Amino acid sequence: MNKKPLILVSNDDGITAKGIRTLVEVMQEIGDVLVVAPNSPQSGMGHAITIHSPLKIHKSDIFEGLFENKNNHTVEAYESSGTPADCVKLAKYYVLKGVPPDLVVSGVNHGSNTSISILYSGTMSAAIEGAIEGMPAIGFSLCDFGSGADFSHIKSYIKKIALQALETGLPKGTALNVNFPAKQSEDIKGIKICRQAKAKWQEVFDERADPYGRKYLWLSGSFVNHDHGEDTDEWAIANNYISIVPCVFDLTAHHAISILNDEWEIL
Amino acid sequence: MNKKPLILVSNDDGITAKGIRTLVEVMQEIGDVLVVAPNSPQSGMGHAITIHSPLKIHKSDIFEGLFENKNNHTVEAYESSGTPADCVKLAKYYVLKGVPPDLVVSGVNHGSNTSISILYSGTMSAAIEGAIEGMPAIGFSLCDFGSGADFSHIKSYIKKIALQALETGLPKGTALNVNFPAKQSEDIKGIKICRQAKAKWQEVFDERADPYGRKYLWLSGSFVNHDHGEDTDEWAIANNYISIVPCVFDLTAHHAISILNDEWEIL
Repeated sequence: MNKKPLILVSNDDGITAKGIRTLVEVMQEIGDVLVVAPNSPQSGMGHAITIHSPLKIHKSDIFEGLFENKNNHTVEAYESSGTPADCVKLAKYYVLKGVPPDLVVSGVNHGSNTSISILYSGTMSAAIEGAIEGMPAIGFSLCDFGSGADFSHIKSYIKKIALQALETGLPKGTALNVNFPAKQSEDIKGIKICRQAKAKWQEVFDERADPYGRKYLWLSGSFVNHDHGEDTDEWAIANNYISIVPCVFDLTAHHAISILNDEWEIL
Repeated sequence: MNKKPLILVSNDDGITAKGIRTLVEVMQEIGDVLVVAPNSPQSGMGHAITIHSPLKIHKSDIFEGLFENKNNHTVEAYESSGTPADCVKLAKYYVLKGVPPDLVVSGVNHGSNTSISILYSGTMSAAIEGAIEGMPAIGFSLCDFGSGADFSHIKSYIKKIALQALETGLPKGTALNVNFPAKQSEDIKGIKICRQAKAKWQEVFDERADPYGRKYLWLSGSFVNHDHGEDTDEWAIANNYISIVPCVFDLTAHHAISILNDEWEIL
């Protein structure tokens, strides 16, 4: 491990969020920190990138003087109009001029990104973009989206996980999706490596009328999990464990290739 | 196979694009068609969904009288302010009140969605959203983003692929990413079931100044493919084959679970 690693921090809740402040606080204890984060909330942005409009990026002093700097580590921060995935591209190719950071971390997201939510998650898209660029990359989420969410019980775990990733690296072609249980009266039980639970959102569209009588809809839904496997992220969180799902960005359903080759008559 | 299937059509280039017109034309030869598509271009939207603002959806007559209706099949169309993934949710949960269509098709995208581009693709996010909902789902892309792109050589193949998917179904938990080579002087050579090539975008940020002297950037890049496997989608397209990559939405890197359990000391 590099003695003084360079750590890129991004998120999807925007640079002013409490979650990213927590992540920057922990990371500046480990190494030099570069923050490139959206200038506004981008939840649900999935792996969107900005190709039809230009991007803005500005230096930010939002973290200045916030943390006790014991180790003489630097924190340099930028806010951007881009998506989380844009921010990682901007960090590597624009701010760092092609030099990869030693670690990419994203979050801490205000709310769960377990199971199928990983696909909609801007937090995880920043991590996955990091992994595509060949860097060890981790997305962190706290399963509490309340405005009073408490991040204090997860700081030591974030540090352990980041140090382990810097030490051991990550399996090639993967990023980690880390979810923390919300603060409870008892301590977190430990960390489990999990698979993504087979669950999904059952949607409801809440129909309303604007002051001019024109109809609009709010996407809203409930999470449905019929997968009670004890090796799933959902099980881990429900039982007060930290879940870590290693994730691919090669979406090939390798097992399905031979099925299609066998069954499809048009080939 | 249902005698008269109901086919949901969406895309990411917006309801006015030539590509979706091509797809609707072919699908209404097979069954009744429901179109729910964005009212503006949404390329690069990835799997974004709209959770911070409300959605609009309106009936559209854009396809009326366009096709010779030999089979008495209906075409009902809606345009929405939502993303491609929103459109599939709107179709199933709002327009169809929970009844799943027999097939979801998305596209035909103006431009390639091979290799890593699947992650950024709005076209594929509509297909993957369909697969999450348990429906056979296919994203179609033509490797030509020129304004004069010719879709005529792919219509018979789109029909064959859609009929095959309706007939055989798709392997559970997968969606298909279909890419067509641009029109060439010789005919397409055939269809290949492929894996996603290990390639990525090398980004460049084109820095400019607005009329007030303020800096802005355009994301721009070149595609870098070091994976020359003859089982990849890139190889198929380069050799004038149609590539079909079956894709997962369970992102778990299953092989990495045991690696992490073995190597990580903090567990």
